[in-house]
Amino acid sequence: MERLEQQMQFALEIDKEKRIYRQTYCSDCETFENDAEHAWHAALMAILLSEYANESFDVLKTVTMLLIHDIVEIDAGDTYAYDDAGIATQAERELNAAKRIFAILPEDQAQKMMNLWLEFEAGETPEARFAKVMDKIQPIMLNAATDGRAWKEHEVKLSKILNRNTKTPDGSQVLWDYMLENFIMPHVEKGSIEDDRK
Amino acid sequence: MERLEQQMQFALEIDKEKRIYRQTYCSDCETFENDAEHAWHAALMAILLSEYANESFDVLKTVTMLLIHDIVEIDAGDTYAYDDAGIATQAERELNAAKRIFAILPEDQAQKMMNLWLEFEAGETPEARFAKVMDKIQPIMLNAATDGRAWKEHEVKLSKILNRNTKTPDGSQVLWDYMLENFIMPHVEKGSIEDDRK
Repeated sequence: MERLEQQMQFALEIDKEKRIYRQTYCSDCETFENDAEHAWHAALMAILLSEYANESFDVLKTVTMLLIHDIVEIDAGDTYAYDDAGIATQAERELNAAKRIFAILPEDQAQKMMNLWLEFEAGETPEARFAKVMDKIQPIMLNAATDGRAWKEHEVKLSKILNRNTKTPDGSQVLWDYMLENFIMPHVEKGSIEDDRK
Repeated sequence: MERLEQQMQFALEIDKEKRIYRQTYCSDCETFENDAEHAWHAALMAILLSEYANESFDVLKTVTMLLIHDIVEIDAGDTYAYDDAGIATQAERELNAAKRIFAILPEDQAQKMMNLWLEFEAGETPEARFAKVMDKIQPIMLNAATDGRAWKEHEVKLSKILNRNTKTPDGSQVLWDYMLENFIMPHVEKGSIEDDRK
């Protein structure tokens, strides 16, 4: 039963993801969202929105990526999308976390989960490209639904959002167009996002 | 774009699931777990533990069931596993909730999600049987990890747990044996669960 013991130990370890808070408000603005909630939301959105991917892809693989993609933050913490200093050290902190946490699993599953996480991070397969769209659209949807509160509090500039999303249209042109038109630009017009394009 | 608008409206509506608290403590005992966290945890466990199912099954279908299975609680609230009065009205409250919430989606997806939820509830397919095992093992794992606190606070009796799990071995004999030996019986011995078998 050693194999099952390892799997259960991993299942218990990842419970800690429920304590990693992001900089996104839930739709009622009462709390920040945590990583487990975000992963659930993004994974379910991947299933519901799969028809809008530019390319056909393996939905289960993308869903698995989304369910595990933030497990590294148990050790590395959440790095806010617009925190440049944090982003400079993020890759190394997260790789170390992935090595420790996935290694709790039996070796074959540890390798599989590590490879899936690396594939997600690289963003160079149809599955990873679509997973990245979900990872972006879910918090942007919530930011828009909360009157841009997180954007305002962090004084986020439009150029930052656009720079973070240069590859989003590669996963889904339809969803990127939708996000831009319905979630982002209305908040540029309202002033929640600073228009620094000129 | 009406179809995509409906899908996005649904995606935003289900954000409310993050406010539905269960009677299970997270592993650090700081808070009760919420439905979104539970769904994430159970879905990921389904992927990692799929090898222990009695029958082969479609993992994506089971994962989808688990991601949506508690959406009905947005309207119906969480009914504690050992709350007999709540359980008496649970089916009707949850069916009404499913009708309202899934209907936000485009008709084909609404029907698909409703059917998946009904299939989960009925528990009569390989996918639903395994999903039900995950829905049971995840909170029992957390109850065991928190020294049986939720069981003690609710004065849960062993017969109740066994009655709630009569079908769990149909989904996975291996995981039921593991739960019984590692999570349940040690807490009967410690007195966190009352042994009322005689």
